[in-house]
Amino acid sequence: MNRILIAALLATAAPLSAAPLTPAQVAALRDAALKDDYAWDITEGLTTEVGPRLAGTEAEARARAWAVAKLKAMGFANVRVETFDMPVWVRGEERAEILSPFPQNLVITALGNSGATPLQGIDAEVVGFDSVEALAAAPDEAVRGKIVFVTHAMPRTMDGSGYGQFGAPRRQGPTIASRKGAAGIVIRSIGTDHHRNPHTGVMSFADGVAPIPAGALSIPDAEQLQRVLKRGKPVRMRLLLTPRNTGTHQSGNVIAEVTGRDPSLPILLVGGHLDSWDLGTGAVDDAAGLAIATAAAKRIMDAGRPLRTIRVVWFGAEEVGLFGGLDYRAKHGKEPHYAIAESDFGADRIWRVTSKLGESRKAEADALALALAPLGIVKGSTDEADGSDIGPMLADGVPGVGLSQDGTHYFDLHHTPDDTLDKVDPEALRQNVAAWTTMLAVLSGGIEEPKRPRRR
Amino acid sequence: MNRILIAALLATAAPLSAAPLTPAQVAALRDAALKDDYAWDITEGLTTEVGPRLAGTEAEARARAWAVAKLKAMGFANVRVETFDMPVWVRGEERAEILSPFPQNLVITALGNSGATPLQGIDAEVVGFDSVEALAAAPDEAVRGKIVFVTHAMPRTMDGSGYGQFGAPRRQGPTIASRKGAAGIVIRSIGTDHHRNPHTGVMSFADGVAPIPAGALSIPDAEQLQRVLKRGKPVRMRLLLTPRNTGTHQSGNVIAEVTGRDPSLPILLVGGHLDSWDLGTGAVDDAAGLAIATAAAKRIMDAGRPLRTIRVVWFGAEEVGLFGGLDYRAKHGKEPHYAIAESDFGADRIWRVTSKLGESRKAEADALALALAPLGIVKGSTDEADGSDIGPMLADGVPGVGLSQDGTHYFDLHHTPDDTLDKVDPEALRQNVAAWTTMLAVLSGGIEEPKRPRRR
Repeated sequence: MNRILIAALLATAAPLSAAPLTPAQVAALRDAALKDDYAWDITEGLTTEVGPRLAGTEAEARARAWAVAKLKAMGFANVRVETFDMPVWVRGEERAEILSPFPQNLVITALGNSGATPLQGIDAEVVGFDSVEALAAAPDEAVRGKIVFVTHAMPRTMDGSGYGQFGAPRRQGPTIASRKGAAGIVIRSIGTDHHRNPHTGVMSFADGVAPIPAGALSIPDAEQLQRVLKRGKPVRMRLLLTPRNTGTHQSGNVIAEVTGRDPSLPILLVGGHLDSWDLGTGAVDDAAGLAIATAAAKRIMDAGRPLRTIRVVWFGAEEVGLFGGLDYRAKHGKEPHYAIAESDFGADRIWRVTSKLGESRKAEADALALALAPLGIVKGSTDEADGSDIGPMLADGVPGVGLSQDGTHYFDLHHTPDDTLDKVDPEALRQNVAAWTTMLAVLSGGIEEPKRPRRR
Repeated sequence: MNRILIAALLATAAPLSAAPLTPAQVAALRDAALKDDYAWDITEGLTTEVGPRLAGTEAEARARAWAVAKLKAMGFANVRVETFDMPVWVRGEERAEILSPFPQNLVITALGNSGATPLQGIDAEVVGFDSVEALAAAPDEAVRGKIVFVTHAMPRTMDGSGYGQFGAPRRQGPTIASRKGAAGIVIRSIGTDHHRNPHTGVMSFADGVAPIPAGALSIPDAEQLQRVLKRGKPVRMRLLLTPRNTGTHQSGNVIAEVTGRDPSLPILLVGGHLDSWDLGTGAVDDAAGLAIATAAAKRIMDAGRPLRTIRVVWFGAEEVGLFGGLDYRAKHGKEPHYAIAESDFGADRIWRVTSKLGESRKAEADALALALAPLGIVKGSTDEADGSDIGPMLADGVPGVGLSQDGTHYFDLHHTPDDTLDKVDPEALRQNVAAWTTMLAVLSGGIEEPKRPRRR
């Protein structure tokens, strides 16, 4: 047991026992977690020793091996990998160039599941639209044979709500453009920064729609293309994107547990996703997320044995289609879960707690909000929880908790080469661990102090 | 003549005449320049309609053609190009990859004048150093056949003074590494940001030293390599850089004038450089700089005829070796110059004025500082001026003025793909134009209002 934690517990609260935790005991665990180093250690280790880990590739397999070794070394029980198969798409060469009237290179990256150009690329006129709605409304002959450019004006929001609406060019643009006979589509990256780092992200063509090359320009490049188009002269672009589908490969979820005193009780599930996009090292998305959830579980384990089992899941293949979350649901969705929660919105501070635990557990939701308040966390809806991998299970009605991170800067980094360790603030990470530790403490059913504390 | 300017002049100052300007007249010109749009117009136009413009290439030639048309359209006199020949180096493919122990790609760019690897790249062990001094002190056998990595800890400074000291890995590292038999060298980018955008920049091998491949890792990648090296296992890297020297090509300085009432008097020279590195569009380095100097000259021209001729120079081929500045000096260095000044430190606000006008012109330096003070500009040394292209002439003893820009953020962008228009703050640009207009007004010898003002 961590000496700082012991000191904090002894200073402020009664010793742990099999009884439910008192508010003072929860507070002591929470405050001790503000000194956490476990989450940094995981984030630094995974991003350094594995780096980028695209789903279904050899790199993600290395990440699973790293994960198993790490979780075992941390003392978790039942560490295992549950594998599943999935289709794999990998990036190739990517280049974009304005040929006329003002020749210059643009920075581009392919969107996940993009079609490919021929190896020599395609040359075509560019036709620009301010929204997918404008693209949809255009006559086919205005688009046929051309490279479509779609821009947008995604704002920064704390809750990330801009991503849904302003992500439409990525999600719907390629299908609409292909149906109209476009030769390709380039979009303004779905992001809020101003760096020459494009944002990738998954999209899929609707059934029966022919894949066309689909890329995201960095935001400065998208603005440059807009300025060039505004000059009113015909704009020709050369576009080279050579991604390919490599067939079916294996991915997997890495699972570990803190065994509860009563394994027959519904479990607590916390996690994040292990895979990342290939452009960065996935520090913010989502090494930090799984590190936060895991550090909190580890801190409970250090404190003693919770009544309920805590299951930690590092989901595989989230970015490319939630394959890990769907596999977990298929294998475990019918097991009773007391609450599920996922950390996958970066590494900035948590500002809000939401939950959907049901009417009968209102008191628990209130106790949770009260225990989190000293961390600067406001009480949100008690009829809402979210998460990508756990989304399908939440939709099935499984109880959930949402610890909302501040997303103001999240879409500066999301899915870009810039998602690297230097973007993670260790202090914000600790606030996250404190919140997750608090949540697990409140929902744990009580923590019994170890009979033989491993004092160091 | 600009209507706003007229209004400002009439409201606050006596009409212009052939006499030296009164402080109130200078102030009126200064304050009217805070509404300037000329500088933005030039910066936006050059970066959009030409984009990157590496010295000696076809892109720089397009930039000269653009410049001549623009300066003529603005009404400058004697618009011309003075050409010169120079050796040209161009970028090729560039990739770096950690092969073991933790395979992953790193973002790299070649330094100007880097040697090339074979087309298949080189594979070698990496040996890391914290400084060029540590590299120099290492025995040759610790370096021979390896890829040298040199890092540093360049801080942000308002006056940019960190660049001199902490730029040593770029300027000296390649020569030292080559002399010790290194297979190649990669450095931490000489910069202060944390984006995956490496900083290029010129270096040259000492006479008789064999060129080796020399690249700059982005700062997040350099930190990643440091973390990997710290694990203590041998680190192997694959490095591919295929730049080449294309021989001798033409560059040139673009020159334009506001003809003074007495062309026999020593002239005022203001300028910036037209070429840019190839990675970005050179908005901050140095489209904004030449735009600021040119906008100020244009504002004086709008106000009337200065006593002294103002010569605007857009230097060619600055980045790769000051070829334009040296050519100007060879052709014009013996002509009398009343003062010379260059804007080449970004687009942030001016915070300080320095000058080196000589003892006999102390009153003029004081008047200049007094007129600039309302713009938030502090008085610096009166025995100092700087500038890259004008540096050799300043060293010759030509009088100069330095309007120091805030460099706190300059090395976030310097020589990176991120040097694009969105980084230029129009309000800061206007403050610059106001300062340069003030400087020209004070040194002009007086401005005579046009006989027939072109009222619009």
